[in-house]
Amino acid sequence: MSADVTLTGVGVGPGDPELLTVKAVRLLREADLVFVPVMADRVAPTVTAGATPPGADGRAEATVRSHVAAERLRRLPFALDDRGGVTARRAAAWDDAARVVVEAIDAGARSLAFATIGDPNVYSTFGYLAQSVRALRPGVRVATVPGVTAMQELAARSGTPLCEGREPLTLLPATAGLALFADAVAGPGTVVAYKGWRRHPELLAELRRQGRLADAVLGRSLGLPGERIGPVDDTEHDLPYLSTLLVPARREHRGGKL
Amino acid sequence: MSADVTLTGVGVGPGDPELLTVKAVRLLREADLVFVPVMADRVAPTVTAGATPPGADGRAEATVRSHVAAERLRRLPFALDDRGGVTARRAAAWDDAARVVVEAIDAGARSLAFATIGDPNVYSTFGYLAQSVRALRPGVRVATVPGVTAMQELAARSGTPLCEGREPLTLLPATAGLALFADAVAGPGTVVAYKGWRRHPELLAELRRQGRLADAVLGRSLGLPGERIGPVDDTEHDLPYLSTLLVPARREHRGGKL
Repeated sequence: MSADVTLTGVGVGPGDPELLTVKAVRLLREADLVFVPVMADRVAPTVTAGATPPGADGRAEATVRSHVAAERLRRLPFALDDRGGVTARRAAAWDDAARVVVEAIDAGARSLAFATIGDPNVYSTFGYLAQSVRALRPGVRVATVPGVTAMQELAARSGTPLCEGREPLTLLPATAGLALFADAVAGPGTVVAYKGWRRHPELLAELRRQGRLADAVLGRSLGLPGERIGPVDDTEHDLPYLSTLLVPARREHRGGKL
Repeated sequence: MSADVTLTGVGVGPGDPELLTVKAVRLLREADLVFVPVMADRVAPTVTAGATPPGADGRAEATVRSHVAAERLRRLPFALDDRGGVTARRAAAWDDAARVVVEAIDAGARSLAFATIGDPNVYSTFGYLAQSVRALRPGVRVATVPGVTAMQELAARSGTPLCEGREPLTLLPATAGLALFADAVAGPGTVVAYKGWRRHPELLAELRRQGRLADAVLGRSLGLPGERIGPVDDTEHDLPYLSTLLVPARREHRGGKL
């Protein structure tokens, strides 16, 4: 029954409806249904045309609305917290979401897309959803379409190359711990920290300790109405959830800041 | 004279003409001229419609041909070696390329695009070109449009998430040295090595030493006709230049391989 069914995790980029790939737009338009993640406390599963899209937790929905008619969009409740790892609450949310997808398959949907901000293989919930769906319907084919990540958009918008020549690039969530961040910043490459809002003061203190505070670039609410991009303001500690901190490699040759 | 001139580095993704963003396609179509990098020994600066596109070094050209008419394409000779850093030969090539761009500006071009495989802020020559152009014409505005990188395409095509939960992700060129690669592989996250062709045996030996050889995924000639994606073949040492090696994080929870 589910052998001819495909579930595709589609990366929709950092929030700008023009920063989806041509392939992502095509798959979203061809899909029988397009699922978008929303916070678990938002219960309305269908999308009303013209209604205000949700905030930070609804960026995927806001982004795909330019490309997909509301009647083919379905909201999937998720537990989007920033603690990482597999908590019982998160696992239960994936299983609930998987059951919604399976109901759609059983009702006849053959091509299903899951729109995810950024890239479906970079800190996305899609992998968990896909595994939960396949636990229930093993025949479902799973695919992903890559998308532009927030760090790439921050690099482009701030004129800061992510990596040049022999430099490495490290991407990490602030939740991975301060030691990992400190080691990476002390190394030879660029470091990008996601989800830094709660740990922002700690990250800044470490940058100050290493003399790198002035080099850092902060993207606040990338892709959202209150978006701000620029140097780190040492006195601003009340960051939005979707913040990206970029600490460029130390560059002495030409080729640094554009 | 050059105050109203914009030079935009446009990421055209890993080689699939569908993996450009909608914005990249629009900018390439709107540009007066679209420059593509070619090896310095390929001298013909104009592109003949219908002629065979160049090989690995001409991937940007092959990719944008689906979107841009040949008469607006111009080849820019570059010294694309894998040694990294700023050699006299490379710097001279950027300066030569910059002079070609400046001639176009002086001839009246106002919007110029430079198509770069992957993302213009990830191991691209665009930053060097832009600085060389601005050294000659300081008023030129420089911008970039992000693009999907080879590691993201390899993750998507092989069903291997790049990072989940609290895992870091490290991207490095094999030219950065074996110690950096070994340290990253011993760490908690995924490691992606670019440009591994010459150092492939060393990288494989290190993976074997750390017991990670069986986990690794190799993308050979991504986006080119001879493309192959799959596990590492221990006996294959003759790799193409454009190879990407992905060593996924050790994952015990569900959410690993799709």
